[in-house]
Amino acid sequence: MLRLFPLALAALLSTPAWAAKAPPPTTADVLAASQPEEWRAPDPAHTLLLELDAERRVLIELAPRFAPKVVANILTLTAQGFFDGLPIVRVQDNYVVQWGDPASGTPEARPLGQAKSTLEPEFAIPKRQAAPFTRLPDADTYAREVGVVDSLPVAGDGRSRWLAHCYGMVGVGRGDAADSGSGAELYVVTGHSPRHLDRNVVLVGRVLDGVQHLSSLPRGDGAMGFFTRAEQRIPIQRIRRLADVPEAERPALELLRSDSDSFRRLIEARRHRRESWFLHPTGRLELCNLPLPVRARSTP
Amino acid sequence: MLRLFPLALAALLSTPAWAAKAPPPTTADVLAASQPEEWRAPDPAHTLLLELDAERRVLIELAPRFAPKVVANILTLTAQGFFDGLPIVRVQDNYVVQWGDPASGTPEARPLGQAKSTLEPEFAIPKRQAAPFTRLPDADTYAREVGVVDSLPVAGDGRSRWLAHCYGMVGVGRGDAADSGSGAELYVVTGHSPRHLDRNVVLVGRVLDGVQHLSSLPRGDGAMGFFTRAEQRIPIQRIRRLADVPEAERPALELLRSDSDSFRRLIEARRHRRESWFLHPTGRLELCNLPLPVRARSTP
Repeated sequence: MLRLFPLALAALLSTPAWAAKAPPPTTADVLAASQPEEWRAPDPAHTLLLELDAERRVLIELAPRFAPKVVANILTLTAQGFFDGLPIVRVQDNYVVQWGDPASGTPEARPLGQAKSTLEPEFAIPKRQAAPFTRLPDADTYAREVGVVDSLPVAGDGRSRWLAHCYGMVGVGRGDAADSGSGAELYVVTGHSPRHLDRNVVLVGRVLDGVQHLSSLPRGDGAMGFFTRAEQRIPIQRIRRLADVPEAERPALELLRSDSDSFRRLIEARRHRRESWFLHPTGRLELCNLPLPVRARSTP
Repeated sequence: MLRLFPLALAALLSTPAWAAKAPPPTTADVLAASQPEEWRAPDPAHTLLLELDAERRVLIELAPRFAPKVVANILTLTAQGFFDGLPIVRVQDNYVVQWGDPASGTPEARPLGQAKSTLEPEFAIPKRQAAPFTRLPDADTYAREVGVVDSLPVAGDGRSRWLAHCYGMVGVGRGDAADSGSGAELYVVTGHSPRHLDRNVVLVGRVLDGVQHLSSLPRGDGAMGFFTRAEQRIPIQRIRRLADVPEAERPALELLRSDSDSFRRLIEARRHRRESWFLHPTGRLELCNLPLPVRARSTP
């Protein structure tokens, strides 16, 4: 009773055009009404297929717009087979899963070949380069503005924008030096969004599918979730660029474009949950609670 | 959050290094300088020990201040052995792990005995009953104010306060009806904080230790992470009140009191990260990114 009043008020204050007549749609309504042209396939030239084994495949779309040099370096490493057979070295609960060369920094380290070992960090890009930007209307703890670009969560301060550490985002491990992240060591966020890492680490993409194969791995027993014994590490069979995977073996997925009308409707559907289960819709939406829809691609 | 911090050298340190004019302390500094009286043991009468088996033990402190009736009902169910042998029925990636009676609502359902099957929902309590409240200074997407009470994450609107859906929080599954959550079906948050569930579900406590035994379970293959076949479910050996566990078998842990000076210093240490790795400290802290320290109890 009392708790319903401020809700109604909140809904009125932020009334989208269509809400005057009918209640806002649910997520399912929005997706069902979306048009085929509002979806796109991941770019095969900038998407990685990580295989723990034939069944456990993880699809990662890279974000060259936000980190062109590191993404290029990762693609160089991938083309050289650098990652094939390297293991997951760290599984920290409510934080990250990380892979790389356990011998890094020793004489036994795997050579980086044509790839660079240090890179000027790409922590943020000018605002105008991060567009179209579909802005979320509610306050964010960490940034002046938050929204979505290329189906990726983004934060900004009015001058620049950067990728945000939401669940499933992929970042570049580094040492204390800002330029020490080459892309040879990568991690995936598998817990509550550690947004305090934003602009401290270069984010390079997002897991589109299969994140559960990483997030459900046994946790590392050492400090910060590193495995203390080599045999505990989880080998990665290989990582390939999707363009180098035979077409028949590629996961056939597509993403809802974040500059589409359906995506904007999705934001409102998540701010004002109308599913019957919700007693107290918040009228708010935090960046990392916005789903970025991925679905099986309909056959052309 | 929910990380076990190594035993501090508290007793050996008299004046913390930062107390003069040095930069703000790190988390490690704060914990090392904390005093023994700033820590407390969990209340054995309101703490549950969930055992998947002898090795995989999960410790849950209940929150009778926020949900006295549901907590009492859960303790009644526990005393009757209601949960013993029931399984985990749902593991949804980046969301929740949930357990209960798969036969609930059928003639084969396990009887609730002395416990109630419906309960007036305890979604929030008056502000004055949620004190002392250690407030966080930064903006929150979902609530006017956020902070910590009894080492639990709390949000508020100026009149009332409620527990917040951070990683490791324990909530009461329910159907569409507000009073349908009896406590016979419980879940733990194991992903990015679903704060839109705040005040839609009664939260009843927090996992103090062992959350990784839940968060790393294989994901359910059905809708919303439910297992589609009975044999996929993960049996819970038993749930006991800590007071009913022989003292020698109890996990010996203690929590940093959230109304202590060290806790307030911890908030500042997390807002302004001074560890050498951080290049760009945010100066902000979101509620669910604040660790709520738990450590092995020092012997008296």
